[in-house]
Amino acid sequence: MKITPLFDRVVVEAADVEEKTKSGIVLLAKDQEKPQMAKVLSVGPGGMVDGKEVKMQVKAGDMVLYSKYAGSEFKIDGKEVTILRQNDILAIVSTK
Amino acid sequence: MKITPLFDRVVVEAADVEEKTKSGIVLLAKDQEKPQMAKVLSVGPGGMVDGKEVKMQVKAGDMVLYSKYAGSEFKIDGKEVTILRQNDILAIVSTK
Amino acid sequence: MKITPLFDRVVVEAADVEEKTKSGIVLLAKDQEKPQMAKVLSVGPGGMVDGKEVKMQVKAGDMVLYSKYAGSEFKIDGKEVTILRQNDILAIVSTK
Amino acid sequence: MKITPLFDRVVVEAADVEEKTKSGIVLLAKDQEKPQMAKVLSVGPGGMVDGKEVKMQVKAGDMVLYSKYAGSEFKIDGKEVTILRQNDILAIVSTK
Amino acid sequence: MKITPLFDRVVVEAADVEEKTKSGIVLLAKDQEKPQMAKVLSVGPGGMVDGKEVKMQVKAGDMVLYSKYAGSEFKIDGKEVTILRQNDILAIVSTK
Amino acid sequence: MKITPLFDRVVVEAADVEEKTKSGIVLLAKDQEKPQMAKVLSVGPGGMVDGKEVKMQVKAGDMVLYSKYAGSEFKIDGKEVTILRQNDILAIVSTK
Amino acid sequence: MKITPLFDRVVVEAADVEEKTKSGIVLLAKDQEKPQMAKVLSVGPGGMVDGKEVKMQVKAGDMVLYSKYAGSEFKIDGKEVTILRQNDILAIVSTK
Repeated sequence: MKITPLFDRVVVEAADVEEKTKSGIVLLAKDQEKPQMAKVLSVGPGGMVDGKEVKMQVKAGDMVLYSKYAGSEFKIDGKEVTILRQNDILAIVSTK
Repeated sequence: MKITPLFDRVVVEAADVEEKTKSGIVLLAKDQEKPQMAKVLSVGPGGMVDGKEVKMQVKAGDMVLYSKYAGSEFKIDGKEVTILRQNDILAIVSTK
Repeated sequence: MKITPLFDRVVVEAADVEEKTKSGIVLLAKDQEKPQMAKVLSVGPGGMVDGKEVKMQVKAGDMVLYSKYAGSEFKIDGKEVTILRQNDILAIVSTK
Repeated sequence: MKITPLFDRVVVEAADVEEKTKSGIVLLAKDQEKPQMAKVLSVGPGGMVDGKEVKMQVKAGDMVLYSKYAGSEFKIDGKEVTILRQNDILAIVSTK
Repeated sequence: MKITPLFDRVVVEAADVEEKTKSGIVLLAKDQEKPQMAKVLSVGPGGMVDGKEVKMQVKAGDMVLYSKYAGSEFKIDGKEVTILRQNDILAIVSTK
Repeated sequence: MKITPLFDRVVVEAADVEEKTKSGIVLLAKDQEKPQMAKVLSVGPGGMVDGKEVKMQVKAGDMVLYSKYAGSEFKIDGKEVTILRQNDILAIVSTK
Repeated sequence: MKITPLFDRVVVEAADVEEKTKSGIVLLAKDQEKPQMAKVLSVGPGGMVDGKEVKMQVKAGDMVLYSKYAGSEFKIDGKEVTILRQNDILAIVSTK
């Protein structure tokens, strides 16, 4: 089963505990209601979005931080995924 | 009887249980008030919408995920349909 | 007596029971506070609306579905009419 | 005494009972808090309004329907007048 | 002491009772919390305002009607003045 | 210590009692919760702000009136300063 | 571990007590719920953001003042960091 995001949408999967520990990122108490670190699963094609050209900056496999309350959540094949606009992604996290 | 959407509107029909099971998508509890997976029935012509050129990316038969609270609901010939803007569609789901 | 809408305004008349039955459209319970299916009586000229070119896609006689809460209602010569922006019209319904 | 509206502003005077009766327009109960039919007294020059070119479509003497809650009300020389933007005018009513 | 408004700002002084009586304008009861007729004291230079070209249409000495709740009020040299955007001015009133 | 504002930001310092008295400006009671007259300390470079060209019209030393609730307040080296957008400045006050 | 901000995002770290004391900036009581002075850790590439060209004006190492409530907070490797848009940064503070 495959999810193909439209426009500037990005599908991300909540990072698991091991990944979070490895990354050294600890979310502050007030933000812990919602996981804000996630791994990118698939990325829309970008292009004209609301009359503006959008180039995609993230790719599948990137670990990202994103805005609280952003996106719509689904549970697919047992995985919790969130579909965001790329603009809701704040930064890419790398562990090297 | 036929429904022809205007501009960037898309008519979708709530996916039935069998389709949902086959797709492997399970909606999270907090989202279950409203079905967010649906099959596209018909698609508007796109073109200039609010002064911006919109190209339609979905077609009749596509299975799609869409934003919570998006769209207007009607019951037509016994089917529940929702009329959305294409921009409220997050992703296309395929089972292959 | 004649009502000439300005710009992208459209005058519609609530569909009567017979028309609704014939069309096969049944509004969902939560939407029944307001009729959302109506027949177009007259159509504005379109043109520049808020600095954007608008072409009219509906014509007098069309049966249309429109957004809940859209428009202003009047009672004229005994008929209930609603004046909408064309952008509040979601789809054209045809029974052939 | 003369009121010269700026930009796309339009000065209208509430239609009196006789004019309303003649026109055949009866406002629905929920709309009766505010008169929504009025006669145009004077019209601004149009031109660039918020960076967009506006052409005036109504003229002094027109009988118009306008949006509920639109405009600012004044009492001048004993007459109740409302100053609207042209965009709040929905339609021109004629009795021929 | 001199107040030089920036951009499309306009400084107005509340009209006194004599001027109001002479003009024949009586504000409706619900609008009486705030004087809405005033004399223009000084006018900004216009020009590019939020990326849009604005030409000033009012001049010092004009008697104007303006939108309720518009502007910021100050008391200067014993006079109550309000600083408005030109766009909050609805019409120029003349008594000839 | 130096504060260099970005873009169209302006740093102002609340006018002291002597300056206010000299200027003849008395704030109305309802506005007295927040000082709205201030002296400009430093001015950003202007340029492209949200995609629009902004030219700075105020300079260090100007005495200005500004919108209620505008800006962010800080206490620096014992002085209360407010950082505003230039667009929140209504007028320049001069005492000559 | 490295955080690479996207677009016009900026990662800042709350200034510690020593840095605040040295800078002479004291936040007003009502603003003390949230630290508003911070050191820039890393800066996005700028470029097209919401269809507008953004050039980055701050660099790693800058001490900045930023708007209350702006940004999303994370705790990374024991440091509290905030990710802001550059537009939420009001001014650069220097101690020379």
